[in-house]
Amino acid sequence: MAAKKEIGVGLLGMGTVGRGVYRILTDNRAGIEEKVGVPIKIKKILVRDPAKDRGLALSEGLLTTNVNELLDDPEIDIIVEVLGGVDQALEYALSALGKGKSLVTANKDMIALHGKKLFAAADANSRDLFFEASVAGGIPIITPLKECLAANRITQLIGIINGTTNYMLSRMSKEGLGFQEALCEAQSLGYAEADPSSDVEGYDAARKLTILASIAFNTRLRLDQVFVEGITRVTAEDIAYAANLNYTVKLLAIARESSDGIEARVHPALLPKNHPLAAVNDVYNAIFVTGDAVGDVMFFGRGAGELPTASAVAADVMSAARNLVNNVPGMIGCTCFEEKRVKPMGLTVTKYYIRINVADRPGVLASIAFIFGKYQVSLASVIQHTSGECAELVLITHNVLEKNLQDALIEIKELPVVNEVSNVIRVEGE
Amino acid sequence: MAAKKEIGVGLLGMGTVGRGVYRILTDNRAGIEEKVGVPIKIKKILVRDPAKDRGLALSEGLLTTNVNELLDDPEIDIIVEVLGGVDQALEYALSALGKGKSLVTANKDMIALHGKKLFAAADANSRDLFFEASVAGGIPIITPLKECLAANRITQLIGIINGTTNYMLSRMSKEGLGFQEALCEAQSLGYAEADPSSDVEGYDAARKLTILASIAFNTRLRLDQVFVEGITRVTAEDIAYAANLNYTVKLLAIARESSDGIEARVHPALLPKNHPLAAVNDVYNAIFVTGDAVGDVMFFGRGAGELPTASAVAADVMSAARNLVNNVPGMIGCTCFEEKRVKPMGLTVTKYYIRINVADRPGVLASIAFIFGKYQVSLASVIQHTSGECAELVLITHNVLEKNLQDALIEIKELPVVNEVSNVIRVEGE
Repeated sequence: MAAKKEIGVGLLGMGTVGRGVYRILTDNRAGIEEKVGVPIKIKKILVRDPAKDRGLALSEGLLTTNVNELLDDPEIDIIVEVLGGVDQALEYALSALGKGKSLVTANKDMIALHGKKLFAAADANSRDLFFEASVAGGIPIITPLKECLAANRITQLIGIINGTTNYMLSRMSKEGLGFQEALCEAQSLGYAEADPSSDVEGYDAARKLTILASIAFNTRLRLDQVFVEGITRVTAEDIAYAANLNYTVKLLAIARESSDGIEARVHPALLPKNHPLAAVNDVYNAIFVTGDAVGDVMFFGRGAGELPTASAVAADVMSAARNLVNNVPGMIGCTCFEEKRVKPMGLTVTKYYIRINVADRPGVLASIAFIFGKYQVSLASVIQHTSGECAELVLITHNVLEKNLQDALIEIKELPVVNEVSNVIRVEGE
Repeated sequence: MAAKKEIGVGLLGMGTVGRGVYRILTDNRAGIEEKVGVPIKIKKILVRDPAKDRGLALSEGLLTTNVNELLDDPEIDIIVEVLGGVDQALEYALSALGKGKSLVTANKDMIALHGKKLFAAADANSRDLFFEASVAGGIPIITPLKECLAANRITQLIGIINGTTNYMLSRMSKEGLGFQEALCEAQSLGYAEADPSSDVEGYDAARKLTILASIAFNTRLRLDQVFVEGITRVTAEDIAYAANLNYTVKLLAIARESSDGIEARVHPALLPKNHPLAAVNDVYNAIFVTGDAVGDVMFFGRGAGELPTASAVAADVMSAARNLVNNVPGMIGCTCFEEKRVKPMGLTVTKYYIRINVADRPGVLASIAFIFGKYQVSLASVIQHTSGECAELVLITHNVLEKNLQDALIEIKELPVVNEVSNVIRVEGE
C-alpha cells in the first residue's frame, strides 16, 4: 500500500460530542498533524437535519443525511460513531468495519452490549476498534489498562464513573439535601435527565463497569452479570450517620478477581474519608485500579462534557490514523483471551452499614445480635440514637458473606421489636 | 523481515528495579505473551558480581559482567537499562540503539540530560526509546501525555513527583514534626538516602519535570531552565500557619504555558486543601494535567519501589516488543517538534505566603504595607501573632510579579522594625 498522504474521517452524528470532535480536530489541527505525521481531515458528517444551526462554520457539502456517503467513500479511513443509541449505531459500526474502515466510538451501550461482535468484525478486517470515550469521558483509562498496566495482573478496579450520582451524593453530603432535592438540582443544572433512572438506578455505571472489567480481567463480562443497585434509597440520614463514623457515601462500580471468580457490582457504598476516591466530588469521575506489580493507581477527571469526551475520541482517531499510516491497523485487538467465572452475588464478602428502627426497650439489641450471631455476622460497631419511644440502631459489620447477611435480615425484620430495617449499605475500601 | 517468534531482552543491571522487571516478566509470562503475541524472554543480564545472592532462581549463564554479550547478541531485540547513573548508561544506551535494538529505560537523569541525543539515535535507527518508568514509578503518565491526551494543547502540569519530600511534608503536617525530624524518620524507613540533597533540594523533581514538560509542550526543555527551590526552609510553623488558612504545603513541580512562554519550576507551595493534589500524601505521587479539551485530569499512585517502577518498565518492554513483532519500531518518536521560549523566573506571576518577624510596635504594618504598595504587591490577608516583644506577621498576597515581590522584600528586610523575613512560600492551585 502506498504511504498515506492524509487520513479521512467520517463523523456519524453531530450532537454534543460530535461537535467537540469537530472543534478539536479543527482547532488543534497543526499539532495533531505533527504528531500523526499526516493531516487528519473530516470529510463527511452524518446528521438528521443539515439546516440546523450548529454555531460552527461548516464548509459546503460536509453534512449529509445519507450514511452511505460515508461508508462507501474510499477516502474515509476512519468512522467516528457518536450517534448514541444501540441498534442503528451497531449496524453502521459493523458495516464500517466490514468495509475496512477503523472505528472510533464513544458509545458505552453499544460496546457493553455488543463488544464481542464488534471486536470479531474489527479483528476479521484487521482494523482498529477504539472506545476510550465510552468510559469516564476524557480520563485515559482504556489505554492505560490495555497498555500501560499490561504487565500487571489487575486484582481490583473501583470506579466513580457516573457523574450525575456523584454530583447528587456530593450535594447531599455537603448541604444535607435529600435524594429528591439533589435530583431536582442536578436536573436543573442539566447534569441529570428528565428520566434519571439510567443514572440513579446504576445502569449507566454498570455498562461502563462491564467494559472496564472485561479489559482489566481479559475476559468478556456480560452486562447481566453485573449486580446493580442504585442510590434511590440513600437518605440524608444515612449520609450524616456515615459522616459521623468517618465515611463518605459514593456510588461505586467494583470489579475484583479472586481465586473463586470475578465480582462485578454497582451499588452505593460507605468509603473511608481518607480513601483517595473519597475526595472525588461533584461531577468528577475517578477509577482506582490495583495491580499485582503497580499497587494502587488512580485516574481522575471529568467524566462527561462536550470537550472532555471529544478529547478521548480525538486521541483515538489519532491512534487509528497513526496505525493506518504505518500499515498496522488492528495491532492491538480484543484482549478478552480468557474465560473467567463470575461469582454469584451471594458469595461476595464485604462489610455492611445497617440502620434499623426499633422499639426503645431493654433486650432489643440482644435479640438482634442473637440473629446476626446465628448467621455468622459479627458486628464491628453499634451506635444507638434514641428519639421518643423509638431508637435507631446504626451497625457496622465485620466482613461477612452477602447471603448470610441477607438471611439474617429476613429474620430480623420479623422481630416484633423491629419497626423497620431502614437501610443496608455496603462498606468498601478498608 | 520474517515474523518474530520470540522477543529477546537484555537487562542492564539487576538492582531493585531490575529484579522487579525480572520478576514481572517471569511471573506474568503467560498473560504477557497473550497480549504481545509472542513470548518475551530475558536472554542476558549485566551485573557487577554474578556470585551475589539475589534471592531468585536464575538459570545458568544468564548473568554476565560483559556488556558486549548483550549489545552484540542478535537474539536480543530490546535493551532494558536499569543501571542508574548517567555516563556509562548513556554509552550503553547509544550503543544499543546504534546496533538496532529498542531501548527501555527507567533512568530519569539520563533522559533529562541527554534525551535529545538519545532520541536522535532512536529515530535514526527507527527504534523505540521508552522511559515511562523515569517519572512517577508505575503511574502511567508518559503514554497518557504522548497518546491519550495528544489531541489537547496542554496548558499546565502540576506534579507531586518526589515521594521522599512528600512523605516528609505529610509527616510534618500530620504530626507537627520539624524538617530534621521528618528527614531522620524518612531515612530510617529507607525513603530518604544518607545524602538527601537530591530529594530535599528539589533536583530529583526538577529532572522529572524536565521530562514531563518537554512532552507536554512538545519542546525540549533543559534541566538548567527549571527554577529549583527545595523544602529545607519549610518549618513546622509554616505548615501550621498554612493549615490555619486552609492550605497544605507540598513540593510542587509546575510547568505552564502562556502566550509569553513556558514556566518550569520546582518549589514548596501552599495548596488549597480542597485541591485534588492536596490529598496526595505520604510516598504517593500524582500529576495534575490541564488540557484545552480534557480540562483537569490527575494520575495518582506510587512513585517508586521495586514492583511499581518495574511495572512501567515491563509495559514499555511489551510495547517495544509489539512494535518489533509488527515491524513498526520507532512508530512514535520524539515529540519535541517545536521550540518554545522559557520565561525568566522574575516574570512569573503567583501568590505568596510571607512570614515576617517584627517588633511589636505601632506603625510596623504600615511601613511594610507601604513598601509592598510601592512595588504593586497587594495583600489578600494579614494575620498577626504576638509573643512577647515580637510579633509574627503572616501575609498572603494577591497575584504579583515575582521580581516585584523580591524587590519589595529586599527593602522590607532593611526596615529597622523587621527582625527577619522568616519565610516566603508561593501559593498555587487557586
